Amino acid sequence: MSEFPKFLDLDIEKDISGRITPRDGPITLRNPHIPKLKEDVLYHLNLSDKANDLPAMFGDVKFVCFGGSPKRMEKFAQFMVGQLNEKIPAGMTLSDISHGSDRYVLYKVGPVLSVSHGMGIPSLSIVFHEVLKMLYHADCKDVKFFRLGTSGGLGLEPGTVVITDAAVDGLLRPYMEVATLGMILQHPAFLDRDLCEQLQEIGTKNQQYETVIGKTMCTYDFYEGQARLDGAFCDFTEEDKMAFLKRIHDRGVLNIEMESLCFAAMAHRAAVKSAIICCTIVDRLKSDQITASHETLEEWQERPQKIVAKFIRKQLGIE
Amino acid sequence: MSEFPKFLDLDIEKDISGRITPRDGPITLRNPHIPKLKEDVLYHLNLSDKANDLPAMFGDVKFVCFGGSPKRMEKFAQFMVGQLNEKIPAGMTLSDISHGSDRYVLYKVGPVLSVSHGMGIPSLSIVFHEVLKMLYHADCKDVKFFRLGTSGGLGLEPGTVVITDAAVDGLLRPYMEVATLGMILQHPAFLDRDLCEQLQEIGTKNQQYETVIGKTMCTYDFYEGQARLDGAFCDFTEEDKMAFLKRIHDRGVLNIEMESLCFAAMAHRAAVKSAIICCTIVDRLKSDQITASHETLEEWQERPQKIVAKFIRKQLGIE
Repeated sequence: MSEFPKFLDLDIEKDISGRITPRDGPITLRNPHIPKLKEDVLYHLNLSDKANDLPAMFGDVKFVCFGGSPKRMEKFAQFMVGQLNEKIPAGMTLSDISHGSDRYVLYKVGPVLSVSHGMGIPSLSIVFHEVLKMLYHADCKDVKFFRLGTSGGLGLEPGTVVITDAAVDGLLRPYMEVATLGMILQHPAFLDRDLCEQLQEIGTKNQQYETVIGKTMCTYDFYEGQARLDGAFCDFTEEDKMAFLKRIHDRGVLNIEMESLCFAAMAHRAAVKSAIICCTIVDRLKSDQITASHETLEEWQERPQKIVAKFIRKQLGIE
Repeated sequence: MSEFPKFLDLDIEKDISGRITPRDGPITLRNPHIPKLKEDVLYHLNLSDKANDLPAMFGDVKFVCFGGSPKRMEKFAQFMVGQLNEKIPAGMTLSDISHGSDRYVLYKVGPVLSVSHGMGIPSLSIVFHEVLKMLYHADCKDVKFFRLGTSGGLGLEPGTVVITDAAVDGLLRPYMEVATLGMILQHPAFLDRDLCEQLQEIGTKNQQYETVIGKTMCTYDFYEGQARLDGAFCDFTEEDKMAFLKRIHDRGVLNIEMESLCFAAMAHRAAVKSAIICCTIVDRLKSDQITASHETLEEWQERPQKIVAKFIRKQLGIE
């Protein structure tokens, strides 16, 4: 056990609640076992630190963009080619680095990774562990993480962009619980306020929609967990539902989705600067079902992508 | 509220603990709101009870087979074509019914559905809600549900097939917790013992591998949640890990995966006969990492599929 304190004593500020300030610098792992592994197989990414030259493949990565849908993250990668003025040689095309795994997609466009995470905390958790380890093996530095998503809004015009300043669970608790060796450990889900404000500043330049900062509720269930009346099971009334949604809205919850708690907790634990930026696709104070047209949904989903693309271009000094 | 008791008073046995006996008969929903909806959009399946003739499409479904990976469930559908002697007309091929959604795949081969559920409880939960509603709208009767998966084994030769008789969470609790309107509700995760034994009888006819019945631990995290030392975070030792894994093994846990708790709890709540049948791909008492070759993993993953295919053929009187 003697080696654990050394590994946990990272060069990061902690306040009395164990709060860690996200920082630039090399990606570190709070796991003393990894350097001792003969081979680290990143099973769900279909990569390994022995079978692949991870520093050569990923050493220049500075921005990791996560999103639920594989097709959406492929489109985002293609969009970033133009945004970053990347040249793709004749006879080549973007290729899913993890195509052998069938679990996630992983695209790379210059210093930007575009990764799908599927739906829900466990699915995100797996790819987050493996991407962190991948970046560690690749000796990456000064990396920022983004989650670009969709969400149900509260009291917001659908299409509004919400930047999360704190993620909470279904009981408004700002931490993720992980059952670990028979104990339930709680990992705080803080996000970087500075980064929120920089993204909001970019977003508000667009007059077509609002860009707001607030709390995001993260649930393990899309139907009952999000107070929907239209799941296979429901034992509450329209009045119960509205009372709950208004109560959480009064306490600052602006939107509801299914990954923010894990994303914020894992990024915070890794001391990586990160942000969650989601468009709303329905106003839950008015409706449960998502009925916007495919085209409208597509346009809304591009809003967080465009904001993050502008942020990345600014950071890289493009234009 | 007056209508709730009527809807909750289904024609099913309940013992004092609220245990429901799964039964044949029509698929019912424990949700009084659904019949009142103008349209029920099954958003993540890209179907709706108004836009699609669900009884015509799905009215004959008797077996729903779920599995994590979209490619694996496509292969299973193709496998079932031969198993059921289904004739696919010239110029036609199997097609993913939910291809518009990019979230799940949904194939139909005669009375069999093959559905992907992604990774983890929340991802499974969404598709389970929507498949139940789909079968309800389609007036389906006498339907059985199966989850065909992979898992880490405990003290079992990799490739062993485990049939789950009870699912437990990371603290060995046999129920799924769902935060609903600010309360944490607990849904028991029982499975049908008869069905387990029928499947085991089929499995044990194959001499190449063992088929066993036991408890399955279901976690929200693949790394720390399953006592792995090789995640991005770890603050326990090899000795801590082994002590925990041996402790749960002593209490009857034969394998660990990430969906059984939800599958069992939702099927039980819907009173649908269901079974979980997973191959083990690593012995966690010996290793954390999955290092079997792609070909070996493929062959192992086909074992639960072949057992369920034989069960279905028997039920349908084929051969």
